[in-house]
Amino acid sequence: MSGSTEGDLTKTGMALKHDREWDYELDRIVEAIEERDASKVGLQFPEGLKRRGPKVADDLREAAPDDVTFMLSGQPCYGACDLDTYLMRRTDVFVHFGHTPMKESDSIVYVPLFSNVDPFPIMEDALEELDDPSENADVGLVTTAQHMNRFEEMTDWLEERDYEVHTRRGDDRLTKEGQVLGCNYASADIPADQVLYVGGGKFHPVGLAMEHPEKRVVIADPVNNAVSIAEHDQFLKQRYASVHKAMGAEKWGVIFCTKIGQGRWEKAQEIVDNNENAYLITMDEVTPDRLRNFDMDAFVNTGCPRITTDDGPRFHKPMLTPGEYEAAIGEKPLDSIEFDTFHDTW
Amino acid sequence: MSGSTEGDLTKTGMALKHDREWDYELDRIVEAIEERDASKVGLQFPEGLKRRGPKVADDLREAAPDDVTFMLSGQPCYGACDLDTYLMRRTDVFVHFGHTPMKESDSIVYVPLFSNVDPFPIMEDALEELDDPSENADVGLVTTAQHMNRFEEMTDWLEERDYEVHTRRGDDRLTKEGQVLGCNYASADIPADQVLYVGGGKFHPVGLAMEHPEKRVVIADPVNNAVSIAEHDQFLKQRYASVHKAMGAEKWGVIFCTKIGQGRWEKAQEIVDNNENAYLITMDEVTPDRLRNFDMDAFVNTGCPRITTDDGPRFHKPMLTPGEYEAAIGEKPLDSIEFDTFHDTW
Repeated sequence: MSGSTEGDLTKTGMALKHDREWDYELDRIVEAIEERDASKVGLQFPEGLKRRGPKVADDLREAAPDDVTFMLSGQPCYGACDLDTYLMRRTDVFVHFGHTPMKESDSIVYVPLFSNVDPFPIMEDALEELDDPSENADVGLVTTAQHMNRFEEMTDWLEERDYEVHTRRGDDRLTKEGQVLGCNYASADIPADQVLYVGGGKFHPVGLAMEHPEKRVVIADPVNNAVSIAEHDQFLKQRYASVHKAMGAEKWGVIFCTKIGQGRWEKAQEIVDNNENAYLITMDEVTPDRLRNFDMDAFVNTGCPRITTDDGPRFHKPMLTPGEYEAAIGEKPLDSIEFDTFHDTW
Repeated sequence: MSGSTEGDLTKTGMALKHDREWDYELDRIVEAIEERDASKVGLQFPEGLKRRGPKVADDLREAAPDDVTFMLSGQPCYGACDLDTYLMRRTDVFVHFGHTPMKESDSIVYVPLFSNVDPFPIMEDALEELDDPSENADVGLVTTAQHMNRFEEMTDWLEERDYEVHTRRGDDRLTKEGQVLGCNYASADIPADQVLYVGGGKFHPVGLAMEHPEKRVVIADPVNNAVSIAEHDQFLKQRYASVHKAMGAEKWGVIFCTKIGQGRWEKAQEIVDNNENAYLITMDEVTPDRLRNFDMDAFVNTGCPRITTDDGPRFHKPMLTPGEYEAAIGEKPLDSIEFDTFHDTW
C-alpha cells in the first residue's frame, strides 16, 4: 500500500520481478524514458536498496524500448548529497531512488520510495512519552522522506488527540513540510519543547537532539516497532573529547568535500587563510583510509557533519566541525560548541 | 641527484621543507602558476607520497604569489588513471606527481618524480640471472616512470657488457621508450626471450610475466636491493580457480569503471547486450565494500585488470576479466585465458 497513486504498479499488469514493499514508480520512469527518447538510463539506489537494483532494472527492461541500456550506480549512496554526478551527466535519464532532490534537472527523476509501514500503532505507543495535551498540548512533528507521504495524516491524527501540532517546512535544503535530513533540522525550529519524530532508526532523531538539546525528542519508529527518547549526552561528551585531543595540534588538514550540497568553500578557505599550518584537502568520500596517508595532527571537516560526529572515532586523528575547530584553537569558548548543520542546497 | 637538470632545486636557494629524495620540480610549478596567473592550484600525489604533500605545499606557498590557494587531492591515487578530474577542472593549475600523462592539457603539470637510486649495482647482480651474452645476447629492457630518466644509461650499460638490448616505445598508452604500466607491457613485445626489469617492487614485473608467460623476466630492484625472477604460475592457477567458481553464475555484474583511461564501454555494453542476466554497474573506485551490496553471483571487470588479478580474492564473489568471462560462459576455451591489458589512453 503506497500513498502515491500515480505510481501504483498494482494496476500496470506487469509481471514484476522486484519486491512490492516499495513503489519504484516504474511507469513514471518509463514515461520519462519515452519522452526523452533515452538510450542510456542511470539508476541509483541508496546503499540499503542496492540489491533490489537488478530486479528493478529487469522490470524496466521489460517495459522500456529494446535499445535502452540501463546502468546501476555503484557509488556509495547514503543520502541526497550522494548524487552520482558522473552517471547523471552521461545518461539521458537518471533516476535517483529514496532521497529528496538536492539538484533539479530535466533529466533527473527522483523516486521517493515511500514506506508502506503503518505509522499509527507506534504513534499510539509514543503518546505515553509525550506530555498530556491537557497540560502541554504543543508538539512538533517531523519525519523523513520515506514517511513524508503520510505527514498530513499524522498531523491530523495528533490533532484529533488534542495536540497543537507545530510543523514547518524548514529552509531551502528541505523540500517538504516536517522533513528532516541528517544535517538539517530547521523543520524543528518550532515553538514546542517536545518533538515527535516518526521514522526508522536513530540517525535522524539523534541529530535533531544534538541540534536542539533543549527539546525532548520522542522517537516513534514504525520500522523497528519501538518507542524511545533521543539522547544527545554521549554526543556532547564525545565532541568535547575530540576538541580536547585536537587542542595541541600543529598541522591541520582542512577537508573540502566535493559532493553536491557539501561544498562550504568560504569556510574552508577562511580556515587556511588564517592558519599557516592548515592544508586544504579535497575528496568526495571522506574515509579513515583516505586520511591515514596524510601526516596531519587533526582534521577539520567542512563537509558532512555526520561523518565528523558519527564516524569521528574511526579516524586515526581527531576530526572536528568548523565550529569545534574555532574552540580548539581558542577563538571561541568551549561551551559554545553546537551541532554543525547545512542550510544551502549546492 | 636527479637526472632532470631543469628542475634541480639544489640551485634555487629556497629553504626547502620537503625531503630531497625526490625532485618535485618546484620552479617549473611556480612558473606555470605565474604564467597562468593562477589563484587555485591543485596538487595530487601517489598514495605513497601523500604525506610529503604538506611540505611541498609549504615550499610552493613560499615561492608563489600570496593569493594562491593550494589544494591537496585526497582521492586515492595508485596510477596514471587516478587523475583527480574534479580538482583538475576546478583549479587553474593542476599538478600530478609521479605518473606519466594519461590526459594532456595546458593546465596540467606532470612531475615525473624520478628516483635518485643508482640502478647499476643491482643490475650488476642481475647479470647472473641473464644468459651469458656469448650464448644468448638478446635481452629486453623495461622500467617504470620513476627510473625512466636513466633508461638510456641502462641500455648503454648492458650494451657495454655485450648484450643486444631490445627496447620499444610500446603503444599510445605508453609515453616513453621501455616504459611499462601495470596494465600495459607493449614495450616488452620484442624479439628476446629474456627481459630485464629495473625498478621497485613486483607489481610491474609480475604483470609483465602474466602478459608474456613465454619470457623469462629478471627483476633488478634497486629500491629493495634485490634480484629475483617474476613468477606467473600462481597467477594462472588463481585465474583458473576464479573462472571455475564463476562458471555456474546466473547473475553477472558488469563493472564499467569511470576513471580516465579505464572506460571500455563497447566491451561492457557488448556483454550486457548478449546476456540478459548481466547488469551494468558504474563506479570509480572498484572495492569489495562497494560490490558487497549488489546481489550478483559473479562480476566481470572491464576496468583496471590489476584489480581483478591482484585484488580479486578480496571480493565476496568471483571477479573476472572480459576474456575470462568468455571462457566462463563457454564462448572460448579455458586455455585461451590470458592477461588482460589496456591499450588506449582515454
